Amino acid sequence: MSVVVYGSGQLAQMMYLAGAPLGIDVQAVDVNTDTVVHPVSKTPLDTSLSQALESADALTVEFEHVPERLLDEAAKTGKLMPDIASILVGADRVREKKLLQSMGVANCMHRIVTQLDDLDACITELGSRLILKASRDGYDGYGQWRLTDESELPSLKKSLASLNLEVVPLVVEKMVDFDRELSLIGVRNKQGEIRTYPLAENLHHQGQLHVSVAPATEVNEALQTQAHDIFVTLAEGMDYVGVLAVELFQCGDKLLVNELAPRVHNSGHWTQSGSVTSQFENHLRAVCGLPLGDTSAIGPSAMVNIIGCGSFSRELLSIDGSHLHWYGKSVREKRKMGHINVTAPSYNALGEKLTALSQFLPLEYFPKLTEEANRLKG
Amino acid sequence: MSVVVYGSGQLAQMMYLAGAPLGIDVQAVDVNTDTVVHPVSKTPLDTSLSQALESADALTVEFEHVPERLLDEAAKTGKLMPDIASILVGADRVREKKLLQSMGVANCMHRIVTQLDDLDACITELGSRLILKASRDGYDGYGQWRLTDESELPSLKKSLASLNLEVVPLVVEKMVDFDRELSLIGVRNKQGEIRTYPLAENLHHQGQLHVSVAPATEVNEALQTQAHDIFVTLAEGMDYVGVLAVELFQCGDKLLVNELAPRVHNSGHWTQSGSVTSQFENHLRAVCGLPLGDTSAIGPSAMVNIIGCGSFSRELLSIDGSHLHWYGKSVREKRKMGHINVTAPSYNALGEKLTALSQFLPLEYFPKLTEEANRLKG
Repeated sequence: MSVVVYGSGQLAQMMYLAGAPLGIDVQAVDVNTDTVVHPVSKTPLDTSLSQALESADALTVEFEHVPERLLDEAAKTGKLMPDIASILVGADRVREKKLLQSMGVANCMHRIVTQLDDLDACITELGSRLILKASRDGYDGYGQWRLTDESELPSLKKSLASLNLEVVPLVVEKMVDFDRELSLIGVRNKQGEIRTYPLAENLHHQGQLHVSVAPATEVNEALQTQAHDIFVTLAEGMDYVGVLAVELFQCGDKLLVNELAPRVHNSGHWTQSGSVTSQFENHLRAVCGLPLGDTSAIGPSAMVNIIGCGSFSRELLSIDGSHLHWYGKSVREKRKMGHINVTAPSYNALGEKLTALSQFLPLEYFPKLTEEANRLKG
Repeated sequence: MSVVVYGSGQLAQMMYLAGAPLGIDVQAVDVNTDTVVHPVSKTPLDTSLSQALESADALTVEFEHVPERLLDEAAKTGKLMPDIASILVGADRVREKKLLQSMGVANCMHRIVTQLDDLDACITELGSRLILKASRDGYDGYGQWRLTDESELPSLKKSLASLNLEVVPLVVEKMVDFDRELSLIGVRNKQGEIRTYPLAENLHHQGQLHVSVAPATEVNEALQTQAHDIFVTLAEGMDYVGVLAVELFQCGDKLLVNELAPRVHNSGHWTQSGSVTSQFENHLRAVCGLPLGDTSAIGPSAMVNIIGCGSFSRELLSIDGSHLHWYGKSVREKRKMGHINVTAPSYNALGEKLTALSQFLPLEYFPKLTEEANRLKG
């Protein structure tokens, strides 16, 4: 079998590595050049994009910002999974909010804003603590603004003045006093079979994910079920095929959907060694119409992102249960260079391992690590 | 980092897949054409063998029968791991026996035979139940003969008459009444760090491995320690670097070494989902001088070889904890086409899963599966 992935970054690479054992040949599309490349080496393959599309059993994406001309071409083959509407939900916050509302899925109170003067009404309706998000091209904290007091409104309007809100509206959300950020990775295959992973707890810094711990601590059955039910509502409602990541805010015993990502997701990388079947394998199983794999956790695990950092001691591999996933990219500020998965028999032992890990890493690039290690050690 | 593997079969492929996350680029050498190929697609890479050898950090093998001219060339670089002497021990039973004897490692009673008439002395010394093995090119049960009664000697001599025993001596072993066949996979890195995996129990049929179960049932600490100590003696004595597989006969509470394989080994494939670090990753860590990974088992697991069989239901993936590893080769009788790893929370559950698995497989190709499933279910 063969699967073509739009995008040739680390997610396509990890899909390739998960697909090979199953006899699934994963090819990647460099969306800047419309060429088909090897997902690991990135060298061009001896096939044109149209040939690759024709011979593929399934087409999928590693990110939601694939140029629409490519998505349209892919959709015409009838082999694009998830479908184009699902992908665009991830690329456009207005579509996303409308979908959540239409399906009755709890999310953050918000308004869609297409002209600056609507912001006054937002404050009246949602209060003066707001997050403003560009509806499109927002990624890892870019294209976001905050209002924490009404007095900041004039200067905020000034900084937004150059935007064309008719073309790219703002989603203005009431700032939520959440207890923590969680995510649910789930998967639905062509036949409609659904599996969800245990909730992961995610620690962000400056809009980027730094550490995930899974299964999240202090999750009772009701909370996991609530998340599972949200996934089922969304995946069935969208007739979704593949892995879908649901980013959540936990407020007491209630979950609010923050964002959807119609693809394998950074907060699911822990599944590579922390669960029976990785999200990458399950995504491929789903789009190829194979039975889904067991999504159970093997034990407590953590995923630590390596961001903007190209130099660290490989001696970190001396920590039992540690696995490095290196993406082979050139170093750039804020760029995701790789991640480290760590498994342990208990949360306390996991905390000890994260402390050990911190000794091998330049901590200025890992601002959440020590804090999380200490929390897990209780 | 980059590692060149002599041989371009499934073992090189699985090394490649284990190396990519670590940022280790694994290239394979097709030893029939001296070309460097991609270990998964087998397509030639844009590099000559000498270029690949020059830029590699380490050279290694996926099988011991690499042409000696290639091994000599590799050895000259000073980067071949394990070294040439260790590889030849796996390729030549006479060397193997001499090594075991010189290190005082318990093995089967035997004689080296270079002329047919020596067989009479073998019977006097070892008894009339013998296994005769060609010292070289023996592989998966080829090049082996049995004597079960002295009366068979004349006909045996006749069938051996065409062999040149001066060039390829026979190793004649007393047939051992062993209780079961076990194997120990261990690994030693460049720095001398050693780790061994839990013992696996192996079920053979017509000289080929069909099923492994790991950790083997009914292994007490003393037996595991005995195996570990054998590994340490051998690996340190040979100054071995990489994964070394030790095939063992268990006779009561005593282990005898049957064979050595200086490489990743079929009876270690269970480590891909049954242990914290796979043998493939640990082999690469070892030859690259990285710290070794945890060799603990996650729980009971089984490895089922797919031999000579190209057609079966992919619905076997519906069994929780099952993972398919397909090698992408054309089907041939007795050829290893792939394997299935299965993990379970208990041996009993593992037996149940093997029973479930058997419903998706043409059982004529899996002669040991039902028996082993029933044994595990007790």
